[in-house]
Amino acid sequence: MRVLFAYPNEVADPWLVALRLALPDIAFSVWNPSGPPVGADAALVWRPPKALFEQEPTLKVIFNLGAGVDALLATDIPAAIRIVRLEDAGMALQMAEYAAFALARLSRDFDFYEANQKHARWQPARGTPRSAWPVGVLGLGAIGRQVADTLAALGYDVRGWSRTPRQLEGIDTFAGAAQWPDFLARTRVLINVLPLTDETRDLIDHRCLSQLLPGAHVINVGRGETLVEEDLLSQMESGHVAGATLDVFRTEPLPADHPFWRDRRIYITPHVAARTLRIESIAQIVENLKRLLRGETLRGVVDRERGY
Amino acid sequence: MRVLFAYPNEVADPWLVALRLALPDIAFSVWNPSGPPVGADAALVWRPPKALFEQEPTLKVIFNLGAGVDALLATDIPAAIRIVRLEDAGMALQMAEYAAFALARLSRDFDFYEANQKHARWQPARGTPRSAWPVGVLGLGAIGRQVADTLAALGYDVRGWSRTPRQLEGIDTFAGAAQWPDFLARTRVLINVLPLTDETRDLIDHRCLSQLLPGAHVINVGRGETLVEEDLLSQMESGHVAGATLDVFRTEPLPADHPFWRDRRIYITPHVAARTLRIESIAQIVENLKRLLRGETLRGVVDRERGY
Repeated sequence: MRVLFAYPNEVADPWLVALRLALPDIAFSVWNPSGPPVGADAALVWRPPKALFEQEPTLKVIFNLGAGVDALLATDIPAAIRIVRLEDAGMALQMAEYAAFALARLSRDFDFYEANQKHARWQPARGTPRSAWPVGVLGLGAIGRQVADTLAALGYDVRGWSRTPRQLEGIDTFAGAAQWPDFLARTRVLINVLPLTDETRDLIDHRCLSQLLPGAHVINVGRGETLVEEDLLSQMESGHVAGATLDVFRTEPLPADHPFWRDRRIYITPHVAARTLRIESIAQIVENLKRLLRGETLRGVVDRERGY
Repeated sequence: MRVLFAYPNEVADPWLVALRLALPDIAFSVWNPSGPPVGADAALVWRPPKALFEQEPTLKVIFNLGAGVDALLATDIPAAIRIVRLEDAGMALQMAEYAAFALARLSRDFDFYEANQKHARWQPARGTPRSAWPVGVLGLGAIGRQVADTLAALGYDVRGWSRTPRQLEGIDTFAGAAQWPDFLARTRVLINVLPLTDETRDLIDHRCLSQLLPGAHVINVGRGETLVEEDLLSQMESGHVAGATLDVFRTEPLPADHPFWRDRRIYITPHVAARTLRIESIAQIVENLKRLLRGETLRGVVDRERGY
């Protein structure tokens, strides 16, 4: 079996050494856009250009080096090629830590103390109990489950929503359009980890935000296109939404003149809530390549209709 | 049995209603310093003045409304009175959340992103893996165990040190003076939750700090007197210690002219890492009063020799 590594801006050597060591029966090589075809069966890809598929018509599987495949699905990948995405691969814990940080910053008044430190002012805040911060997690795949579990373990009242019903121990779950209003009505801190699909694009809009509990806060670590940015601003204008912690945006990098940058109620990070971790990613791909060699079912195969 | 509520600046009613409802056989009342003695058997106290013990010589037990009893032991409580402290009572989770926030702020470059937001600058940090932030928790009682467990669950490499040996699942533990150097040599982020005793006063000094891994960071949520403040500053001056997150100080409120306020490497909060939570505290005291009524062993009795 021949496998290509097609991740242009990444140093290939650490990947290839680890992959060759783990799978000596597979011939790994780095994709050379100007070289001859190698007759690859599979490829590890990040934002692959069309040229890859034209050059390697024998490709049957591509492994996307990330969890989100919305950008990939927007390009023309030949229909016969199976797309496999990373599931978790160390990203879930990073997302959970990011969410815990963002939530603590709100619920524990850390921004207030930061402002006070500048004036050498010692002033304990009045404080709010955890019960004042009911959390709703949008998306209950590997990442959403970890986020929900972590915040519940920290004592927060957590619920989760997913497209199709999911069971989580100790966490109330809601599913589909029917339970959407109930979910929103009990949520003050809305955490989005949903993949971007036709169904989730613009999901967090004026109508959604207005159904959250007053003083709501949005934490978006999923995809920027799920949030209607003007609707967030108008809901903050009215005071119903108190603020947001945003890692992803409709346009990235976020343009320097975007109003989000200058709003003190919005906390901005540059798409870093979860990075693809090399060791964990390689381990997951090795496992899948072994399954491929043995003709077994792969994990994380993308359903193109569903969009993830 | 007669029990006094002696917590001067607290509204007594919510406490008394809950206590009377839970324990109808006990006569609860608010301590009146200028009233006649009531012949109290026990008292719920916060920083009790000597006058309480002079007025109520029948007191046999006092329940301190906090976990730390160093201030209480520094006053002259008659030797025959048993002192009971709160154990956890919702404080452990708050401490764990505080520690997770402080650690994420370091390891995930949130301070860098906050500075960048002011300049509308989109710049992902290079990032460091969790393995670059080995954590050492000082103190493995109810609070220390929760802090260690929470950070380990977030994927950090965590170890703990305690005066006497303790076992924690999935966490390396060190005990006593013999294992102190080993513990420090593997720790970059030192988190102190120790009670203040003669043994822990000035424990985190020049010598201790110099044995930590380079680029060390101190998180102090225990007691201010455990940290030698000038030694922290001199170790930061040399660059061996990179910074600190401090909730407790030798003098509180921290004086406005203290050098800590103006050092950007030090993150200051005004002794708020864990508040006494009313419901949890009442539940713990109710449980102990039931034991007292039945003549059973109380939980959280302070060993005056040991100091906690």
